[in-house]
Amino acid sequence: MISDDLLKQIEFIKEIDKIKYIKRRTKLFNSDQNENDAEHSWHLAMMAIVLSEYSNENIDLLKVIKMVLIHDIVEIDAGDTFIYDQNKNHENTEEELKSAKRIFGILPEKQAAEFIEIWIEFEEGVSNEAKFAKSMDRLEPLLQNTSNNGGTWKEFGVKYETVYNKKKVIENGSTELWNYAEKLIDDIVKKGILEK
Amino acid sequence: MISDDLLKQIEFIKEIDKIKYIKRRTKLFNSDQNENDAEHSWHLAMMAIVLSEYSNENIDLLKVIKMVLIHDIVEIDAGDTFIYDQNKNHENTEEELKSAKRIFGILPEKQAAEFIEIWIEFEEGVSNEAKFAKSMDRLEPLLQNTSNNGGTWKEFGVKYETVYNKKKVIENGSTELWNYAEKLIDDIVKKGILEK
Repeated sequence: MISDDLLKQIEFIKEIDKIKYIKRRTKLFNSDQNENDAEHSWHLAMMAIVLSEYSNENIDLLKVIKMVLIHDIVEIDAGDTFIYDQNKNHENTEEELKSAKRIFGILPEKQAAEFIEIWIEFEEGVSNEAKFAKSMDRLEPLLQNTSNNGGTWKEFGVKYETVYNKKKVIENGSTELWNYAEKLIDDIVKKGILEK
Repeated sequence: MISDDLLKQIEFIKEIDKIKYIKRRTKLFNSDQNENDAEHSWHLAMMAIVLSEYSNENIDLLKVIKMVLIHDIVEIDAGDTFIYDQNKNHENTEEELKSAKRIFGILPEKQAAEFIEIWIEFEEGVSNEAKFAKSMDRLEPLLQNTSNNGGTWKEFGVKYETVYNKKKVIENGSTELWNYAEKLIDDIVKKGILEK
């Protein structure tokens, strides 16, 4: 006999396959191919593992990894929100929360509750784990855009100040990574890629 | 000052982007789109989190996740080996070990050693974590192929016995998941999709 719980978990595993079709604005490294949400989430998890020593605070790495692996699953219903989109409210939690409840709700009750809680904790960005997870989420596209000669900043005419303010979130998770990120931003300003 | 270690870690983070271009034979769920290694690795990590309760033995989930996230990075140099390819030696560890040493070797020494060790542990498949990680690696394409009306089995004329023997590895990690997998295989035999 196959348990009901296992059937729910298998259904969830099939459902989340859909994030592989959700394209982000950002391109892969040195590339003109858009990154999808599964690729992005895998990369953030790898970054969290590799860079955890730079976290400002002690963190539960397993929790950080869970956060970054699941953080974009809500986009299956809610779609990707471009970080530099000025017309869309980025505190779009109504739509995303509904999506989280539907998709994580496919899981057995206790597990569903755990996933929703972790997702909310990430979104709130208050805990040490959420701060570090968000640093990863801001650092990856910074690395991609600099490798792509400006990438989405150039493509959508995003200015220095906007980039700087969005990226400053990295500092909440890691001062050392923010020092590096600031240097990267300075370098591309000097190269004339990002307009100050 | 940016430390040498951090620069090495950033270089590694850029290098591993390449797995997003490595296509597997298996297709996404209900799809004719090939899965790439980053998507596959993300999905295995999600499955490990969701299904860890079914492991035969107590496992360190963080280690299992590290295993599945990094297990295909060696394919950047060594390429993807199709599990049902009869002409290629699947104990192709010379080429893959060389690749592991080059790519993980980009990292600072201690971290490089840790990653190589975890990768070897996964390949050997002896520890509880490796057994469970390998269950995930066999279960995902089983779910995909059954959702795709036979998928790569049909496409490459793979017979029941071969599928059954490859998939039986799931049992080493989880008897309960193997019971489910066996049922799935039986069902597609009944439907005439897989030839006994």
